[in-house]
Amino acid sequence: MSRIVTVGAAQLGPIQRAHSRTDVVRRLIDLMRRARAMGCDLVAFPELGLTTFFPRWWMEDQAEVDAFFEREMPGPETRPLFEEAARLGIGFTIGYAELTVEDGRTRHFNTSILVDKAGRIVGKYRKIHLPGHAGHEPWRAFQHLEKRYFEVGNLGWPVSRAFGGIMGLCICNDRRWPETYRVMGMQGVEMVLLGYNTPEHHPPAPEQDHLAEFHNHLSMQAGAYQNSTWVVGVAKAGVEEGCMLIGGTAIIAPSGEIVAKALGRDDELIVAACDLDHAVSYKTTIFNFAAHRRPEAYGLITERAGVVPPPGDE
Amino acid sequence: MSRIVTVGAAQLGPIQRAHSRTDVVRRLIDLMRRARAMGCDLVAFPELGLTTFFPRWWMEDQAEVDAFFEREMPGPETRPLFEEAARLGIGFTIGYAELTVEDGRTRHFNTSILVDKAGRIVGKYRKIHLPGHAGHEPWRAFQHLEKRYFEVGNLGWPVSRAFGGIMGLCICNDRRWPETYRVMGMQGVEMVLLGYNTPEHHPPAPEQDHLAEFHNHLSMQAGAYQNSTWVVGVAKAGVEEGCMLIGGTAIIAPSGEIVAKALGRDDELIVAACDLDHAVSYKTTIFNFAAHRRPEAYGLITERAGVVPPPGDE
Repeated sequence: MSRIVTVGAAQLGPIQRAHSRTDVVRRLIDLMRRARAMGCDLVAFPELGLTTFFPRWWMEDQAEVDAFFEREMPGPETRPLFEEAARLGIGFTIGYAELTVEDGRTRHFNTSILVDKAGRIVGKYRKIHLPGHAGHEPWRAFQHLEKRYFEVGNLGWPVSRAFGGIMGLCICNDRRWPETYRVMGMQGVEMVLLGYNTPEHHPPAPEQDHLAEFHNHLSMQAGAYQNSTWVVGVAKAGVEEGCMLIGGTAIIAPSGEIVAKALGRDDELIVAACDLDHAVSYKTTIFNFAAHRRPEAYGLITERAGVVPPPGDE
Repeated sequence: MSRIVTVGAAQLGPIQRAHSRTDVVRRLIDLMRRARAMGCDLVAFPELGLTTFFPRWWMEDQAEVDAFFEREMPGPETRPLFEEAARLGIGFTIGYAELTVEDGRTRHFNTSILVDKAGRIVGKYRKIHLPGHAGHEPWRAFQHLEKRYFEVGNLGWPVSRAFGGIMGLCICNDRRWPETYRVMGMQGVEMVLLGYNTPEHHPPAPEQDHLAEFHNHLSMQAGAYQNSTWVVGVAKAGVEEGCMLIGGTAIIAPSGEIVAKALGRDDELIVAACDLDHAVSYKTTIFNFAAHRRPEAYGLITERAGVVPPPGDE
């Protein structure tokens, strides 16, 4: 058997604050066309793929913050992307800051969507693992204020039947948490699409900086292998507003092997023909969950958020 | 700060069926002495470290099966190992098949223990993720009958305060499941000690055979990184009763980096001075569980064992 989904992972170079959404959409459309020319069914763009990574700044004026958010999707500036996708007959996924009114309340999420070849939104996810901090920490070279500007996502990790398979979405920091992949794995996910903006420098732990790309791949490769799923991880990379973001965009097979990887830190397209049935031998043998998992022993994973060490001295 | 535990990972070459426990204990003591000479506080031996990996055979005579099990620990043949450890002032961990009577019932477990420098058992674990199958499958080149010969462990994944830190145990196939490390991570584990007997050839999915060592390291490195813990993985390796077992014994830092690795597939000692405080910068920043985990979104992990795909066509 084989069920091929040809995927383009479209790494973006930096988006500076001065760049308009119209500028960015032009770059996205260029990458989309190149992906279509290489036979892609689907092109994946990164997290917050329409603007600069604004959580690096402390802002007190909510109007200034909200200028980075989308109030509708598609909106006037993003509609050309949807129209071009439908014209080309290619699907896509992209992340953006979402401003919405729910239950009479204005809400802010770090969101990604999956769009089918007809230009319809068929999957939506709001980031759950928000990294960083909520208060101003002026000692940092730059802030990481996702906990200030976004609420925790309220959609879980849904999966969608699309592109002939079971597709899932997550975003950036989610990829470091095995629970992310597992919740989708429990729903039979066959391809996880994720974007990230990952500063190379982590102010609270600079001694880890040289490992940033290793940790990126390690987390995604383990998530792929342990859940028998393709993982497509797409960076926004390069020097954005003085902050270096890692690259390392990669397409990873259910074996955990990297089958395609970006070389640079600018706009760059990598492509792989991904056979969703590559996962079958894993899902039916060593990772046959029904045969081998033991949820009765996993209680601590859902009972609490934090560590409780055993009694005794530190 | 630094809290150094110097660990020897003592890979074993094959143990053939004809080898007596006394023969094996002699090898273990030799490795233990070498570890002590290299300054080790602790030496780690593999799963089922006293006998050949007997689940490769279909046996119908329970007495024949039970001959591979230990009825007491230490027993007459293993007491010299405990005595030598106490004499040298070195701790150890080892796996063995455990036959015990609990609640008036004879029970069989795949067990490992942690022994302190005084020769006292300070940690005990019974394998939860039993791989393989329960029935005879004669088409296989060899059987993998752990589900026949063992019950699922009934001790959870306890951690122990020992060697100046928080130590955890798991066994072989457990290492492929992120839940294993996470349950110990929720208890603040700082070093996970595990042994394995992993055939290079996996009869149900031989197309994965060439990836066996990659998957071994990928799983342990991700478990280490994602839970900010040292992981010490120790193989029984080489051609045992005609069956090739992988090597790849490794000591892995909380960064996910391999800091020591065995080269061969025979008795081989590797050593590392492991600073338990290496994990602090991870546990307090990116993997501060209390700050970043979202258990309310993890329900599917504990609600059921197997996959339930979304509605719709396959």
